[in-house]
Parts: sequence; structure tokens; C-alpha cells
Amino acid sequence: GGLTEQVAHAIMKACVTKAYEIGQPVVVTIVDDGGNLKSMMRMDGAIKGSIDISKNKAYTAAFFHTATEELGKLSVPGKDLYGIEITNRGQVVTFPGGMPIVMNGRIAGGLGISGGSTEEDKAICLAGIEIVEDRGEA
Amino acid sequence: GGLTEQVAHAIMKACVTKAYEIGQPVVVTIVDDGGNLKSMMRMDGAIKGSIDISKNKAYTAAFFHTATEELGKLSVPGKDLYGIEITNRGQVVTFPGGMPIVMNGRIAGGLGISGGSTEEDKAICLAGIEIVEDRGEA
Amino acid sequence: GGLTEQVAHAIMKACVTKAYEIGQPVVVTIVDDGGNLKSMMRMDGAIKGSIDISKNKAYTAAFFHTATEELGKLSVPGKDLYGIEITNRGQVVTFPGGMPIVMNGRIAGGLGISGGSTEEDKAICLAGIEIVEDRGEA
Amino acid sequence: GGLTEQVAHAIMKACVTKAYEIGQPVVVTIVDDGGNLKSMMRMDGAIKGSIDISKNKAYTAAFFHTATEELGKLSVPGKDLYGIEITNRGQVVTFPGGMPIVMNGRIAGGLGISGGSTEEDKAICLAGIEIVEDRGEA
Repeated sequence: GGLTEQVAHAIMKACVTKAYEIGQPVVVTIVDDGGNLKSMMRMDGAIKGSIDISKNKAYTAAFFHTATEELGKLSVPGKDLYGIEITNRGQVVTFPGGMPIVMNGRIAGGLGISGGSTEEDKAICLAGIEIVEDRGEA
Repeated sequence: GGLTEQVAHAIMKACVTKAYEIGQPVVVTIVDDGGNLKSMMRMDGAIKGSIDISKNKAYTAAFFHTATEELGKLSVPGKDLYGIEITNRGQVVTFPGGMPIVMNGRIAGGLGISGGSTEEDKAICLAGIEIVEDRGEA
Repeated sequence: GGLTEQVAHAIMKACVTKAYEIGQPVVVTIVDDGGNLKSMMRMDGAIKGSIDISKNKAYTAAFFHTATEELGKLSVPGKDLYGIEITNRGQVVTFPGGMPIVMNGRIAGGLGISGGSTEEDKAICLAGIEIVEDRGEA
Repeated sequence: GGLTEQVAHAIMKACVTKAYEIGQPVVVTIVDDGGNLKSMMRMDGAIKGSIDISKNKAYTAAFFHTATEELGKLSVPGKDLYGIEITNRGQVVTFPGGMPIVMNGRIAGGLGISGGSTEEDKAICLAGIEIVEDRGEA
């Protein structure tokens, strides 16, 4: 169980495959439920600015048990969590591309994708998350 | 090839010349494509707060392959990259004055100018970028 | 050319294979010549304290063009670089487990291994570096 | 008066000339008496690990009004300043290559050189400091 090397490899492979499919190089980062790095890959051609963003999306999803996109809806001016991106030492991201990794009903970590448009990042992230669900572990 | 001392000197000279021409002292920073400092100069009279801003503009342009101004358009509330200025350990700047240095069709680094109004910083930055283009290396 | 996904995968695989062979889980980190993350994997059972050490060993090897072990020999009290481990924002490591990745005679990045004894880390690091040499790219 | 652009340029030129003369590329950093960057240049071929070291040597010389080498003699185990390299947020360097810039009898800043052996760094640093003395401003 849990976010093993094997699971991390499977998620990584699904994300990279999807990224090649849509022709958008990205950075893929997987963290455990403690927000600590498990695995990362910067694909050839992905911008370097995406290294931190990808990691922070993964961290945000793991630490808040939610997709970064959902957090984003609550953090615009006038909403409850306005300004949350400043907390947690600048590690919170509020735009799409980060999703929690849930296994056997419990939070196991976070997956963060950065490098493409927010729609592309989200699609690649979903491809990785579906792997866990397909294994009957979501 | 690449962002050599010679190229950095030429960019620096063009920026400083333009800054004298418009009478606005600034900080000029040049980083390579890995975001590492290549050259910097704080002109006499430039405010010290511009040291970090200039460096971060150069970093942002190099790491995101875009002018800081363009990134700024996508980071206002309601846009896709709202909050991006928080993500990279406080090193992302989203207002004018930073531009990527492109040589032979590839990203070679970033140029950041800070000290004047955003219009002045942008004009000085352009003067430096044009040098690379004039050399037929853009 | 350069430190591509393909090369990073080959180095990673060689390191993980060697780590399994000697029965010591470790963290493997690969950075490019600018010190920016290319790929990392924390094997099951590797201690979390090794995440930063592994990254910093890779950074040190890439930024100083030398094995961390060699830098260590020069940084003991009375030697020329005593205190160097403090200089680069705490990112310099001076004990074994980090080696530069050299391709076509130029520095292409750094490889850092942490998790086992220094002898084990060094052996796993060598296994990764040899892959690059076997490709005729060292 | 003071550490103007003109003086910084003259120091920089003397250091780079000396570095070419002895065939050792280095990073040259000049800070003012407040420890804030005035000018820096990373020569082609200088290792990137020298960026921070060069800056920290300049900072150390400016803030402690002494050559980094002298501070080093007092910071070995058993001496009065043992451990000083840990203070000041990791910005203190205790090996040769940093010297204070003194003008008209007052501390005006610091010059830091890194990239060669400690003897080479020291020789290049001296070449820069002599420029200020030759101007009758030391």
C-alpha cells in the first residue's frame, strides 16, 4: 500500500504519456501526504519556471486535500480564502494542475503538473490520477 | 555562442547608454538560461530596492520564456495564472522591465531592469534586447 | 545532446538497480548544469532527510565541477576551502555521494545520492555516472 | 567620491585583465559599504558555485573591514572567532579572495573574487584593490 515507488512510476508514466500525446512538455511532481518529494521529472523542453510551480501544486493538493483549482475558486478577492497563496511560505498555488492522490479512501499525496496552459496541465494531471483510480485504490 | 561575457557587455552597455539618455539611473541584471547571474550593474543614484527586483525580472523572463509584462496580463484576479508571483520563492515579477534573451532561436537568459517607471524600465530593457537582435542572434 | 529525459532515465535506472542490488534504499537526484532539477526519485524506505542532501550533492557537483568527496578534502580545518559548506545558501555538501555529469567534455549536470553509508552512496552514484561514460558521452 | 560606477568599472576591468593574464576565469563581485551589490561579472568558464562565494567574500570584507583571509586566521578551532562563518545568515567567508575597498580613509565597500585557487583569487583581488590605491583614494 501507499504511495510506493511502483505507484509513483505508474502515475509518472501516465502523465508523461499524456503530455507527449498532446505535445506539451511539462514538469511532473509527486509528493507524499507529508508534502515531501517522492518523484519528479522535467520533460525536455519544459520551462524551468515550472519546477517550483509543479512542486507547489503537488504540495497544495496534498496539504489541503483538494484540487488547486477548487482552492482557487475560494481565493479570489471577496471570497473566504482570499490571500491563502501567501500562507505556507509561498508554497500554495491556486490555479489548475494540482490534485490529491487518494488511495483506499485516505490522502496519500499530491500530483502537480506545470508547463502548459491550465487546461493542458489539468488534463495531464487527470491522466495521472486516473491510474490510481483504475487500480481500485482511489 | 551563447550568453558570453562579450554579449553581456554589449547588452549592459546598451542599457546603461539608454538610461543616461533618458536620465534615469537603474539596476541592470543579466542571468543565463539557468537563472544564474552573469552580470549586473547598479548605476549611481539607482535605488537599492531595485537590486532584487532587477534580478527577479531577469530570472522570470529566463524561466518563463516571456516578458514579465506578458506574464502580468495573465496573473490578475480572474485570469489563469492569478497568484503566480508567489510560486517561485518570491522570485517572479509580473510588471514590465524583464525580457528573455533569445539567441539562435533558443532561450539564452533574461534581462531585468528596475529603477525607473515601468515605461522607462521597459524602454531600457528593449535597448538591451535589440543589441542581441542586431547581432543576428535573436 | 545534453542531459535529456532519456539520459536522466538511464542514470536513474542504473542507480536504482545498484541500490536494490546492495539492499540500500536511497534518494536519487539529477540536476542540470544550472543546478535546476531534472529528475528525482525517493525509493521506498529511504529516509526523508536524504531528499535535501541528495539534491544538494547534485547541486554541489554541478556547480563546482567536482565530486563532493574531493571538495570535502579541501574544506577541513587548515585547508584552503575551510567553511565552504556555508557559502552557497547551505546548498554545498562536502561528503561522498555527489558527482558531476560530464557529456562530450562539458559539464552537463550533477548526480546526488543520499540514504546509505557514504561508501554505499558513492557506489550507487558511480553506477549512474558509468552509464553516461558507457554511452561514449563522458 | 565614493564607490561610483566609474570606480566599480575600473576595479572590474583590473580584475578581469589580471584573470585573463593568469588564465583563470573567475566571478568578480563589488558591494558597497552596506553590503549591497554594485557590480558583478561571471567570466566565461568560471564555475557557477563561485557566484555566491564571490558575493559573500565581498560582503564579508565590507562588513568586517578586513580581508577574508585575516578573518580565516581567527576562525579555526581554538581561535576567538571559531564558528563565525555560521553567523550573518551564512554570508561570511573565511578563506582568501575578499578585500575591503577603502577610499579616503573610509570603508567604501568590498571586492570578492572566486573561481581559481585561493592564491589566484587573492592575486586577482589585489589587482582590483590596487586600482583604488593608485587613484590616491585608498
